[in-house]
Amino acid sequence: MNCIPDQEFAERVRRFQANIREAGLDAALVHGNEADFANVRYLSEYWPTFEAGGVFVPARGEPILIIGPESQAYAESRSKIAKIEMMTEYRESAEPEYPGIAVSTFKDIVKKALPGRALRKLGLVGTAVLPLPVYTSLKRDLPDVELVKADKALVSLRQVKSDNEIALMKKAFRISERAIEAILSEMKPGMTELQVIGVAQREIYQHGGEYEGHALYCFAGTATKNAISRPTYRKLRKHEVIQLNIGARVGGYSSSVGLPCSFGKLPQRMERLVEFGLEAHGKTMELMRGGKPAAEVVREYEEFVARRGFKQYMLYGPCHGIGMMEVEPPWMESVSTYDLQKNMTFQVDTFFYDEDFGLRWENGARVTETGVEKLSKRFMKLVEL
Amino acid sequence: MNCIPDQEFAERVRRFQANIREAGLDAALVHGNEADFANVRYLSEYWPTFEAGGVFVPARGEPILIIGPESQAYAESRSKIAKIEMMTEYRESAEPEYPGIAVSTFKDIVKKALPGRALRKLGLVGTAVLPLPVYTSLKRDLPDVELVKADKALVSLRQVKSDNEIALMKKAFRISERAIEAILSEMKPGMTELQVIGVAQREIYQHGGEYEGHALYCFAGTATKNAISRPTYRKLRKHEVIQLNIGARVGGYSSSVGLPCSFGKLPQRMERLVEFGLEAHGKTMELMRGGKPAAEVVREYEEFVARRGFKQYMLYGPCHGIGMMEVEPPWMESVSTYDLQKNMTFQVDTFFYDEDFGLRWENGARVTETGVEKLSKRFMKLVEL
Repeated sequence: MNCIPDQEFAERVRRFQANIREAGLDAALVHGNEADFANVRYLSEYWPTFEAGGVFVPARGEPILIIGPESQAYAESRSKIAKIEMMTEYRESAEPEYPGIAVSTFKDIVKKALPGRALRKLGLVGTAVLPLPVYTSLKRDLPDVELVKADKALVSLRQVKSDNEIALMKKAFRISERAIEAILSEMKPGMTELQVIGVAQREIYQHGGEYEGHALYCFAGTATKNAISRPTYRKLRKHEVIQLNIGARVGGYSSSVGLPCSFGKLPQRMERLVEFGLEAHGKTMELMRGGKPAAEVVREYEEFVARRGFKQYMLYGPCHGIGMMEVEPPWMESVSTYDLQKNMTFQVDTFFYDEDFGLRWENGARVTETGVEKLSKRFMKLVEL
Repeated sequence: MNCIPDQEFAERVRRFQANIREAGLDAALVHGNEADFANVRYLSEYWPTFEAGGVFVPARGEPILIIGPESQAYAESRSKIAKIEMMTEYRESAEPEYPGIAVSTFKDIVKKALPGRALRKLGLVGTAVLPLPVYTSLKRDLPDVELVKADKALVSLRQVKSDNEIALMKKAFRISERAIEAILSEMKPGMTELQVIGVAQREIYQHGGEYEGHALYCFAGTATKNAISRPTYRKLRKHEVIQLNIGARVGGYSSSVGLPCSFGKLPQRMERLVEFGLEAHGKTMELMRGGKPAAEVVREYEEFVARRGFKQYMLYGPCHGIGMMEVEPPWMESVSTYDLQKNMTFQVDTFFYDEDFGLRWENGARVTETGVEKLSKRFMKLVEL
C-alpha cells in the first residue's frame, strides 16, 4: 500500500537501460536531492533527505545507489536497489568532513558497475539539479569519459503513468480535496495566510499523505498576482481574493488542487475574471485528448482566450506535467513538439491576473483516447464564504 | 516582526563585499534553491520556491538578485536587493522553455554590476548546490574568468549571530516546544509516524512558524537507528523507542528539539542508553565556552563517552551549526580548526544506537564567554507516556 510494487521498480530499471543503450551510452548517472527527488526515487524508491542521492545505471547489469555518509541505515531500509555506495560528494550542504569514514570514488563505482567493460560515454540525468561537487569529481575521476545530458532517457519513461502510479496520484488528489474542505470550514478573517497552511498540513498527514505535494499556497489580496510565491503573516480580510493551492504526496506521487475564494462577495470585475478563468480551465480539459499535438492544445487555448477578450490578463498556461513532482516535464507550450498520449498526466493550471489581483484554477487530468479523466472534480465554482 | 531589519541586510552586503575584496575577488555569485536557501536569503531575504535564486555581488557597488522566469512579482515584493534580473538557468527543474520571455545572460549581469570594470576572478558561494546549468553558462559566457570556491567569504559571516538573528531563533525554538507539547498530549498507540508529523505541522503554523525547520522526524522501533530518515506509515506501539525531532522556522531561522519517548516503560537496557545519552548531551553543553577550540570539545566529549564505556554506541557528534539551516557550517569534528566564539549557535546533537534502536537528544545552544545559553530547556528527561 502507498508504494509502487518491487517488480515495477525492476521493470523501470530495465526500460531505462534499453534507453541508455539506444542513446549510445555505456551508463547513466542520475541525480536527485531532498526537494528534487523524482529521478532517483523513480528507480530506487530512495528519497534523500538532508543529503543528496544518485543512481549509477550501467547499460547492462546491476545499478548502484549512491548516498551520503549519514544515510546508510535509512537507504538500506528503503532502497529497492541492493548495491549501495557512499560518497562525500553527496553529503549535506553544511559540508562536514566525517573524519575516518570510508567512502567511494566514481572510479570505484565504475569498476563495480561495469566490471571489465569500458566507460566511454556517460549520460547525466537530473542535470538541472546536478551540483558542482558531483560534476567536479566526475571530471577529475573520469577525465577521458564523455559526459552528455541524458535527461530524456529517463524522463520519457516517467511521462506515461502506469496503473499503480495513477492510483497513488488519485489518493493524493483525494487528500488535497479533504485538506481544502477543512480549510473552507475553518478559515476565518484575521487568520494569517500561514495559519491556513497549518490546517492543510494537519489534514494531509492525518489522511495518509507522506508530505506536502509542493510548497503550499495561501495568498490574499495583491499577492495573488504572483505566479510563484510564499505564504506570509498577512491576515486574511473580507472581499479580497484568497488563492489556495493545496497539494499532497503519497508514495512519491503529488497532487494539487487550486481555487480562488473569498469572505463575502468580491467586486464585480474580480468575479468576472475569476469566472472567465474557470471557463478557460474547463475549455483546456475539453481541448485535450490522446494523439493530439500539445502545441495545438496551447494554440487553441490561446485563441479561445483572445477571442473572448482576456488575452492581456493571461500570464501563461495552460498545462504542465504532474506525477512525482507537482511540476514535471513535459510542459504544454507553443513550442512543444510532442503529441498527448494515453496516461500522460497534466496539471491544468489556469492563471489570470489584473493589476491588483490574480487567480488560478488547478486540477489534474489523465489523458485518455477520447479526452481526459479529471483527477479532481470538486470545488469547481467560486466559493464566497 | 519575524524579519531581519532592512539596515541589517545592507550591512551584510557591505561586510560580504569586504570579504570579497580581502579574498582578491572582483565579485561573487551566490547560489540557493528552495531547500538550500540560506546564502541567498541571508543577503536578500528572497526565499526561492520552485525556481532557484542567485545573488551577484561585485566587490564594490550594488548587488543583483537573479531569479527564474516566473518569480518576478514575488521577488519584487520580497527582495531587499532592488536590482533584479531573470535567467533561464534559474528556472524550475521541469525545464519549461517560456517562449517569448526576455531573459538576461551572465554577460549582461556582469556589465550591469561592474560597469567599466574588469571581471577576472569570480568567487562561487553555495557551491554544494550550484547546479550544472548555472556552471555551464558561466563557463560559456565568461570563458576568461577564473572561477573559485568562495563559500567561506559568506559562511564566515553567517556563523556568528546578531541579536536579531538570535531573537528569531529563540522564537523558532519556542514553537518547536509547543509542537512537542501537542504531540506528547495527542500521540497514541496505533497512530502512524506520519500522523504525528501532522500534529507538529499544525502547531508550527498556528503559532507563527513560516515552515518546518527541517524534514520532521518521528521514527519508532528499529527505524530509530537511522541517523537520517523519513517518517513512514508504520503504526506506533507500546514499549518501543519513539524518536521525535521537531523544528520550526521563523523569518528564515530554524530550530529543532529532539527527544526519545515511549508508551509505557522501555526495557531496562534501552532506558540505560537513553539516560546515558541525556547525560552526554548535558556534558557537551558543559564543555562549550567562547574561546575554546572546537576540536577540544570533540576530544573531551569522546573521551567522556569512552571512559563511561559507551564508545561502541556512538555514531557521531557532538554538535553542528544551526541558524538559517537546521544543519549549517561549522560542524564540530575532531578535525575542526576554529575556536568557539560568542554568539555562534550550535545544535547539540547527541546520537547513540544499539543493534535494534537508537536515540537522539537535540537542543540549541548559544556560545557565551563563560559557557552556553540553552535555546530550549524543556523535555530534558525520558518521557514514558
